[in-house]
Formats: sequence, C-alpha cells, structure tokens
Amino acid sequence: MNSHHYGLILAGGRGTRFWPRSRRRSAKQVLNVVGERSLIQGTVDRLATLIPPERIWVLTNHHLRETIGEQLPEVPKRQILAEPAQRNTAPAIGLAAHILHSLDPEAVMGVFPSDQVVAAPRAYRAALRAALKGAGAGRLMVLGIQPRWPETGYGYIEFPRGAAPGGKEPIPVRRFHEKPELRKARRYVAAGNYYWNSGMFFWRADVLLEQLRRHLPKTATILAALPGFRSREFDQRMQQTFPLCENISIDYAVLEKADNVSGIPAADFGWNDVGSWNAVYELGSRDDCGNVIARESVCLDAHRNFVDARGKMVALLGVQDLIVVDTPDALLVASRERAQQVGDVVKALEQRKREDLL
Amino acid sequence: MNSHHYGLILAGGRGTRFWPRSRRRSAKQVLNVVGERSLIQGTVDRLATLIPPERIWVLTNHHLRETIGEQLPEVPKRQILAEPAQRNTAPAIGLAAHILHSLDPEAVMGVFPSDQVVAAPRAYRAALRAALKGAGAGRLMVLGIQPRWPETGYGYIEFPRGAAPGGKEPIPVRRFHEKPELRKARRYVAAGNYYWNSGMFFWRADVLLEQLRRHLPKTATILAALPGFRSREFDQRMQQTFPLCENISIDYAVLEKADNVSGIPAADFGWNDVGSWNAVYELGSRDDCGNVIARESVCLDAHRNFVDARGKMVALLGVQDLIVVDTPDALLVASRERAQQVGDVVKALEQRKREDLL
Repeated sequence: MNSHHYGLILAGGRGTRFWPRSRRRSAKQVLNVVGERSLIQGTVDRLATLIPPERIWVLTNHHLRETIGEQLPEVPKRQILAEPAQRNTAPAIGLAAHILHSLDPEAVMGVFPSDQVVAAPRAYRAALRAALKGAGAGRLMVLGIQPRWPETGYGYIEFPRGAAPGGKEPIPVRRFHEKPELRKARRYVAAGNYYWNSGMFFWRADVLLEQLRRHLPKTATILAALPGFRSREFDQRMQQTFPLCENISIDYAVLEKADNVSGIPAADFGWNDVGSWNAVYELGSRDDCGNVIARESVCLDAHRNFVDARGKMVALLGVQDLIVVDTPDALLVASRERAQQVGDVVKALEQRKREDLL
Repeated sequence: MNSHHYGLILAGGRGTRFWPRSRRRSAKQVLNVVGERSLIQGTVDRLATLIPPERIWVLTNHHLRETIGEQLPEVPKRQILAEPAQRNTAPAIGLAAHILHSLDPEAVMGVFPSDQVVAAPRAYRAALRAALKGAGAGRLMVLGIQPRWPETGYGYIEFPRGAAPGGKEPIPVRRFHEKPELRKARRYVAAGNYYWNSGMFFWRADVLLEQLRRHLPKTATILAALPGFRSREFDQRMQQTFPLCENISIDYAVLEKADNVSGIPAADFGWNDVGSWNAVYELGSRDDCGNVIARESVCLDAHRNFVDARGKMVALLGVQDLIVVDTPDALLVASRERAQQVGDVVKALEQRKREDLL
C-alpha cells in the first residue's frame, strides 16, 4: 500500500435508467441493485486493501451527499464533496486533483465510477496496481477491459496490434473510439487490440493539473485561484467559481488530446457498468425459466423476466422478457429490450413536474 | 311492481380470476372493478324499480356475508344468508325457494348472479318483466341474450327457428347447450336462434320446489324437513343438513330435465358477465393506444394494456396486451390472452398454503 495513492469516486450521476428505484436522493450508486451493499459501497470495499477509506474522496451532488456519508461511515465526511453544479468529469476531476495536490504534492489518484461491479476483485486489483505504478511514473493511465461481446454502449480504447490482455506494463494508447455501431463493435472485438473503456483513470495530481493548464486553461485558472482546502473561504469560493468551469468530460478535454496516454489492457475481471435493469438481470441468478425474481413469486409459463418488487408476492402468467420494478409510489413495466430507454419515463415525469417521483 | 316478486342474488362465488384484487373476503362481486359501485351493488341498483331491496335475498358464504351486509344496507340483514357449505346452485336456489314459499305461498322469484354488468338497464328490466310474467303463469323461465360474438365461455339456449330477439312472450326452449368450441359457437351465432345463457332464472317458488321433488328428491326432502325460517332452530338445523344436499347446478338438476322450460330471447342489453380482467379491459375506457389505465400513468410505445394500480404512478414502456394488477401485498403481470387462467395462480398459492393471499 502506497500512502500517496488516493481514490476519487465520481458519484454525481442520477442513473435515471433505474427509475422507479432510482430517484434524485437515491440514485443508482446508492442502491443495492446487485447484492446487499450499494454500488458505491461495493466500490469502496473493493479498493480497501489498495486504497483505504481514509484516502478515498467522493464527488457527488447535494441530493446524495448525506446518504453517501451514511453509507460510507469510514470515509472522512470532509472528503465527500458536493459539486455546486454538474460540469461533467473534467472540472470535477480537476477540483479533486487541485485539492489532493495541495495536501500531498506527490499524490497519485485513481478515478473510479461509483456504479460498477466486478466479479473478480483480485484480478481487478492486480490491474489497478499496474495502472497506479504507471501513473506514479508520470503517465496518464487508462484501464481497458478485454471485451466479452461487441457492446455498443461503451467507448473503446485502441492499443497497438498484438497488445495481450493481462499484461502489467503500460502500453501507449493509439486512439479512443466513441460508442460504435454494432458492425464496428464487431470489427473491434474481432481485431483483438480494442478494449472497453472502463472509465477508470490513473495519474499524478500534478500531471493532470499540468494537462488542464494546457488543454482547459479556464478551468485550470479557476481551480488555481481557490483558497486552501482547509481555509474557511474554500467552500464559499468553490460554490461561486466552480459553475464557471467548462462543462466537458475528461475524455474530450484531456485524454483525446494528450500525447502521453498509456493503458493497461486488462483481462476481463467480470466488470459490469450496470448500465440498465437489463444488466441487473444479466448479473442476477435465474430460475429454471430464466427469470430473475424473488423467491416470493408464482411463475406460470413466464420466461426471462426481471422482477424487483420487494416484500410483495409477484405472479407472472404467460409473459416474457419483461422488466417489472415496483416501489410504494411507482411501478414500471417495460420490455427488456427497452431497458436503455427507461430514462425517457423520467423525462416525461419531469415535463409533468412530478418532483415527488424524480 | 308486484309484491309477490322476489329477487335471489347468488353471491357465493370466489372469482379467483380477479386475483390479486379478489380474495376470499373481497370476492369479485363485492369489488368495484367496473365503476364506483361493486358488482353486487350494481345488481341491486338495477333491480330496484322492479324488485325493491326489501324483497331481495342474498345467498353467499361466511367470508363475504359481513361485507355484503355493509354494501347493501337497504337489504334486511336476515335476508343475507351464508351457505354452510358450497353445494352449487340447485340446493342454494332450493333453500331460497323453500324459505320464500313458507313466507309467501305466491312468491315468484328471479335468480340473479351477483357479478354481471348491464349497459342498458331499461331494456334489461323490460326483459325481466316479461320473464317474471311468464314465471307467474307457472313456467320455468330462462333469459337468453342475443349473442354479439361466438363466445366459447358461455352456455347457449336453443329456441325454435325464427325466435326473434326482443319479444315479450315466453317461447319454449328446445335445448340447452354447454360451452361450445369456437366452430360450434360460430354455427350457433350464424343460426340466429341460439342465445347466450345469462344464468338468470324466473319461477314460482312452489313450481321450483315441485321440480326438486321430482328431479332432486334428496335435497327436496332435506329442505322440507327444515323448521320454520323464523323459528329459533332454523339456523342450527340448516347448518347440519344443508351440507348433505347434492352438489349440483340448477341447470343439470332441473332445467335440462324439465319439460316446461320457456325463455325470453332478449335483444342485447349490453350484458357482460365480467368473467376475467379481460372483460374489465373491454368495458373500460381506452386511451389513444388502447390502454385501460388510470390517468396517473406514463405510456411510451405501450398498447392495449389493462392496468389496475390505484394510487400509484404506472409507467409502461414498449409492452403490449398485458394485464397488470397491483395491490399492497401482491402484484400480477399476465398476458391478456391468459386472463382466463389467473385462477391457476390462486391454485398455486393454495398449494403453498399462502392463506394470507387467498
């Protein structure tokens, strides 16, 4: 364990595709959609032997800060920050880099989404160690995951031809590719040197700040002008100036422009970004008919359905490939192939100003 | 209004096809699945100008007696009887005939299922008047409904060729036909002299008792031995001896054997026996996509669904032809074409001894 290694968990998302279980105050990352612990708790648990909770930082929003504090009692409260406004990942990561660098000039940070699951945490940590080592040496490091299927919902990292999965040495990244169409995704998987972009990044705080100065000068200037993190004025000034930062992802702002990006092409460690109810279905344990459903159920000629309806008897009769999610004030019934569009329901509720259901 | 006319409402059924809304203590007939009033309240309301509540009698079971009493405050409590055991319709009707005849030797009774709806009550009452008139003259009267489609879920009454709908004179019944297969049902409808068997019957109490003596002597003997209805011993003796009656329907026991059965071939008065959730769907008002659903809903590319989920936002996404019924302790999601098999869910719960859900 290296005492200069820090974890930044990005937990500002809403996860509207998990409505009606996800709400502003109970977004996807604080839900236990898979297993007993919430997704963000799972993220902290997984890191613990590599980066202990005392060196974990969380960036979230004011809706979720309290819940996350309750779910992560071992993470110091001061390290759970609410962004004054959503400005995508570049300003958020920049802010954390600024603070970490001010507290520890040798800080190396790993950036982790808060809403992923990993089936093989040992292999995951082995890949992380390799990535942190590359970061410590001054590289901008990304983590690629060997693709299991031609997923169109992920971006891809292109390594040089012949990059073998599971290596421990950083390999220069040739290019980043946005979410592809299916034909392209198939080509990527067949080629062998394209990896899923996991959204996990690793770098020294000072290296990242230097990149921001070069590629995102306005944000860099705003961050540089902040008073010391431990000073009384920090919060107020941050509230005022953070919203002025560019609204841009770290991928666009830095990674696609920088020339020293390397990566670890990791063998698959059972990574899943839990992108929709369908992912929860895929992760769940199925009955003989392929249904993922609580034991409290009657399934008659029902196949491949996903049901989340806690504390209630559910009966399925002659239905296939459905998503059924029940909560005290809302019920979703969707076709599994529409799992990606559940967010459209939330948009419809926003238009109707149904704040109580958002 | 003829003061010798009595109504007997048969309300002993369970209506398991309406689970999870229907339970032993809230069977179909006491639910407001269509409109604001329950089905049994609707039945009493419809009859009121023909047979007032003071001359309505109800036969039900001990699970429902109290609820029915509450729903029908205008019907004298003493006239709401709980059968000691379910013995199908012949003993139940026989019991009512015995009591009515003992109180009023000139009693003419109409027998009404408790769980039907009628869209045109004036036409309904006109048909009833004709049937009661025929019954008063000593006939066993049935009420046929001009079929709107080749329904396979109803029995049929065959009148002589040329029997026109809407006549007021009793016409001799040629034969009763059980629920037919689709091809046969189509032939019936094309022929023009086959009518749906509504399950409504009309006769003088003394005429029916005579028929029972002839065709169901055991039940007739048991009934004849009962003490006076107003005596103290009546209830106890009825409890003891009623379960010894034959378990048989009035159709098999009497109607198919008697030679003086006549009927009124009624023009359709919007009759519906509300046989399943699908019938409720057919009776409901639909949105532009053919969904029957509360206003509190979001439907995205969802068509022809029936949803009953009171006090809760329901979102449907990319689903078709579903039945969704939500209650505090149970949720049903079924294909509409399986509406007739919802009772199988109840059977499965019985096997698991889930009394709390029955």
